[in-house]
Amino acid sequence: MELDRIKRAKNLILKILKEKGREHLYDLSGLSGGFLIKEEDKDLLNTYIGSSYFSEKVKELGLKHLGGEECVAFNRTSSAILATILALKPKKVVHYLPELPGHPSIKRACKLIDSEYVESSNINILKEVDKDTLTVITPSTMDLKILELEKFKKAISIAKEKDSLVFVDDASGARARLLYNQPRAWDLGADLVVTSTDKLMEGPRGGLLAGKKELIDKIYEEGLKYGLEAQPPILAGMYRALENFSLERLKKAFERAKNIDLSKFDSLNIVYERTPTGFVIKKISNKDNEKKLVEAGFYLLERYGIITITVAGSIGASKSLRIDLTSKDADRLSDDYIINAVYDSIKIIIN
Amino acid sequence: MELDRIKRAKNLILKILKEKGREHLYDLSGLSGGFLIKEEDKDLLNTYIGSSYFSEKVKELGLKHLGGEECVAFNRTSSAILATILALKPKKVVHYLPELPGHPSIKRACKLIDSEYVESSNINILKEVDKDTLTVITPSTMDLKILELEKFKKAISIAKEKDSLVFVDDASGARARLLYNQPRAWDLGADLVVTSTDKLMEGPRGGLLAGKKELIDKIYEEGLKYGLEAQPPILAGMYRALENFSLERLKKAFERAKNIDLSKFDSLNIVYERTPTGFVIKKISNKDNEKKLVEAGFYLLERYGIITITVAGSIGASKSLRIDLTSKDADRLSDDYIINAVYDSIKIIIN
Repeated sequence: MELDRIKRAKNLILKILKEKGREHLYDLSGLSGGFLIKEEDKDLLNTYIGSSYFSEKVKELGLKHLGGEECVAFNRTSSAILATILALKPKKVVHYLPELPGHPSIKRACKLIDSEYVESSNINILKEVDKDTLTVITPSTMDLKILELEKFKKAISIAKEKDSLVFVDDASGARARLLYNQPRAWDLGADLVVTSTDKLMEGPRGGLLAGKKELIDKIYEEGLKYGLEAQPPILAGMYRALENFSLERLKKAFERAKNIDLSKFDSLNIVYERTPTGFVIKKISNKDNEKKLVEAGFYLLERYGIITITVAGSIGASKSLRIDLTSKDADRLSDDYIINAVYDSIKIIIN
Repeated sequence: MELDRIKRAKNLILKILKEKGREHLYDLSGLSGGFLIKEEDKDLLNTYIGSSYFSEKVKELGLKHLGGEECVAFNRTSSAILATILALKPKKVVHYLPELPGHPSIKRACKLIDSEYVESSNINILKEVDKDTLTVITPSTMDLKILELEKFKKAISIAKEKDSLVFVDDASGARARLLYNQPRAWDLGADLVVTSTDKLMEGPRGGLLAGKKELIDKIYEEGLKYGLEAQPPILAGMYRALENFSLERLKKAFERAKNIDLSKFDSLNIVYERTPTGFVIKKISNKDNEKKLVEAGFYLLERYGIITITVAGSIGASKSLRIDLTSKDADRLSDDYIINAVYDSIKIIIN
């Protein structure tokens, strides 16, 4: 049934694409990533040299974005984490983050090499670290809950005092934290930083890893052994995404999310919430709520061309109707258009 | 020094690209893969739906190419192998192939989960298999040494008799074996088959895995956990490569390699060999042979626009001057042009 939903969404999107064109589709899922390569990039990808060309470009712009002495790219942030754990073989990994649970990829990688793994949102967990421990800090969660800068600094300094390597999982944080005027993790003393090139930037899914050269070289070599590195087309997409990244644009989207007028929804008997990047409709009916949210999502797509996770998300994804204003396509729509479209789609379904 | 060589090759290629255009470059390395996506594919990659769209396309054409009930894509053949070993957790892996050594990725994956690993080019190694064993067969090596069909069939039947799952590493074989009129591995009874989408076809580097649905689902799910799956841009490239794959074209290249007249090289005091896909110059000087081969390679690139592994290959790659006629760019050059270009480049250097 979930597969039917995905197929229905796909067919609808392809129909709109074919009949009306790309400009009539608005992907507001916040998860679309992007693939901004140019024709000249494509030509280069067809020669042997594309790989070294784009890895140099990614390194150049990646070092500006993340800091560090060396920067390489992996197929996903999860693969970068796996390569790191496989290469460093820490006896124990201590993971400190503002909200549990941590991303399962860290725990899984530890299990593979029989490393102990502990995680906590309490900074006292760092009492357990020593020189044989890898300290992982995730300063920004999926929902963009951000660790306060003072706590972040303190966590790094505790780990460093105990000679533990510091690996910062800055998947969304490398950009989200900039909005709160936080420095780059490298500038705070991290040894290694990883970020996701599809989160709050327009890259393909992938993991960009930067830090101390000696460590990065070791990790990348280990990653190559297991096929974890990013391939040239992904490198090309990352390069163009880094080139196009604009903190100003992101700031505008965050401001917009803060200010968008959601009061129109009050006239409907629904549960909604503002999020750091937009808003989410959680409940529109006491009966068959998920089913009705999905129907509202389909109406929103068919009538207004707006793509949401509700209809296009992978199997088991949340059915809440989430609008993400950091999505590039949001720039082409007014607040009024978005609010009216969502309002109308819900009203049609619940009446 | 190797890095200097790669940079020199890259700069030269970019110079030719800029000053003369792509049509004046001829990548005859046989390793360039390809990235044939269309503008409409790129547009789709920028929406949430690109991933499911291209995975369906890859499945559709992948099943035709490899056979099987289900087909999924990984970041590399090595990642597909890792996901398979992690998912199936065999007690022991027995690897039968026409020539040692086997690809290190299989052994490495086994080591990670403490599975025993043995490999041999003697079919008697299969006496060791049982129901807790994964039988891996590599019927075509990197150098396109092909296992005879009768031996291949026998190997599969021995494994099946002993209830061992059969995993065929058909990286280049899925296409190379067709040239020797061999059937697809699935049609011979394999449970799982993997192929490399950049070998003898114009796809990006990646691993396409097909076989029994129940197994594929399990392996793909395990792969997702560690970030081993192919991302949408890679899927798009694989789809177009599968769509463009032509056995006729490959047959022509093989015929061409068989018939290309190499006699002109006899007037030079050099060591050369015909290969299944072209030819290779191994020795042009008693002194500083590698250095001189590299210089000949650079002359070949600068004067004739021909890219070889000799100049553009990654660190430590062989310095033999290898010409691969399955490369797409070879279609734009006559035998005479290629032979004269290589002859001239060597003559200039050794005189």
